[in-house]
Amino acid sequence: MNLKELVGEKAAEYVKDGMVVGLGTGSTAYYMVEAIGRRVKEGLDIVGVTTSNRTKEQAEGLGIPLKSVDEVDRIDLTIDGADEISKDFQGIKGGGAAHLFEKIVADNSDKVIWIVDDSKMVETLGAFPLPVEVIPYGSQQLFRTFEQKGYKPAFRKTESNEKLVTDAGHYIIDLHMEVIEEPHSLATWLDSLTGVVEHGLFLDSVNTVIVGGENGVEILEAR
Amino acid sequence: MNLKELVGEKAAEYVKDGMVVGLGTGSTAYYMVEAIGRRVKEGLDIVGVTTSNRTKEQAEGLGIPLKSVDEVDRIDLTIDGADEISKDFQGIKGGGAAHLFEKIVADNSDKVIWIVDDSKMVETLGAFPLPVEVIPYGSQQLFRTFEQKGYKPAFRKTESNEKLVTDAGHYIIDLHMEVIEEPHSLATWLDSLTGVVEHGLFLDSVNTVIVGGENGVEILEAR
Repeated sequence: MNLKELVGEKAAEYVKDGMVVGLGTGSTAYYMVEAIGRRVKEGLDIVGVTTSNRTKEQAEGLGIPLKSVDEVDRIDLTIDGADEISKDFQGIKGGGAAHLFEKIVADNSDKVIWIVDDSKMVETLGAFPLPVEVIPYGSQQLFRTFEQKGYKPAFRKTESNEKLVTDAGHYIIDLHMEVIEEPHSLATWLDSLTGVVEHGLFLDSVNTVIVGGENGVEILEAR
Repeated sequence: MNLKELVGEKAAEYVKDGMVVGLGTGSTAYYMVEAIGRRVKEGLDIVGVTTSNRTKEQAEGLGIPLKSVDEVDRIDLTIDGADEISKDFQGIKGGGAAHLFEKIVADNSDKVIWIVDDSKMVETLGAFPLPVEVIPYGSQQLFRTFEQKGYKPAFRKTESNEKLVTDAGHYIIDLHMEVIEEPHSLATWLDSLTGVVEHGLFLDSVNTVIVGGENGVEILEAR
């Protein structure tokens, strides 16, 4: 069992009968969805809320009952991966281009668990490029703004070298900042920019982090 | 000549040879685009940057050369309407559902002129419903958040009573706040909400307001 599978299986244990569960996106979340799917086949009674078209297809294939985030009152628990988590439990997500829907689901959740292998745990955020989802119209102007700030922006591309289009119809600009000293003020600035739909900084969002390493699983509780 | 036509004609006089001009959207901007179209036929040499599919079609029909906001370095001057302007030159726009693209164009402009009839000039913003453009996924949850705040939200509908979809593929929720005491803090809060693409508060955006009234045209310079 690889580390992603290990933490995915562990996180699925947090899901209880009757819950509305937010289902994340990505290579680690994949194993969690698989594990929940097996438990549903064994009789677990939950409703899933998905964060991408990919996860929706996977969950449907596993027979997990699904609702849209707009069809539920609240989400009890959301389990998702993360691309980078700092010592103070701030995160970067969006490597899978799904951070807009992931953040919408997380914001409507009573509890959020992130599942990662220990390579994602860092001292300070920023080595992982920060994804910023933007409106295509005007995106070249935003790109220049980021360039002038020294953030080394790059449009996310597909394998065929086209600009990647997200599930919501936007582009992604990845910022190569190396070190993000003040994630909260960066988030506020990005939020204020016209044309920025959502950035990949997930601040004060997570309750529990499940980390897989060579010595097994570690469970960290954020304060 | 009605008041909208009067201020539209007046604003067109600000356009000079060689300018890149942002062309607003709406019933007042319509007359400004018509007036600029006539001047282009007479030899005025400009490039227009449009703020909606509607204005694009109008400008193309008039033979105004057009570029996307991403194809120009900067916009010299943008002329647009407004739905409400307070004494301190803050504005609400978005009655025509075009405020996302309008704000993208305004943010990239060296100078912004708003053209209105005097019914739009108010002491304090808020009698005009504040448009908030939102991602469809999760929009019902945002609606509830606005409801709990007492902002009397309503989804913008089409004539056939469907939720209106903007040029960028989003919904609009109109907030009926009556009085907006602190537009800057409201803007910051709305910016921070996941799923809010752009709101209709245009703060510290305009340089010159051209107001049409029964005694003619008044030109107000914002500081």
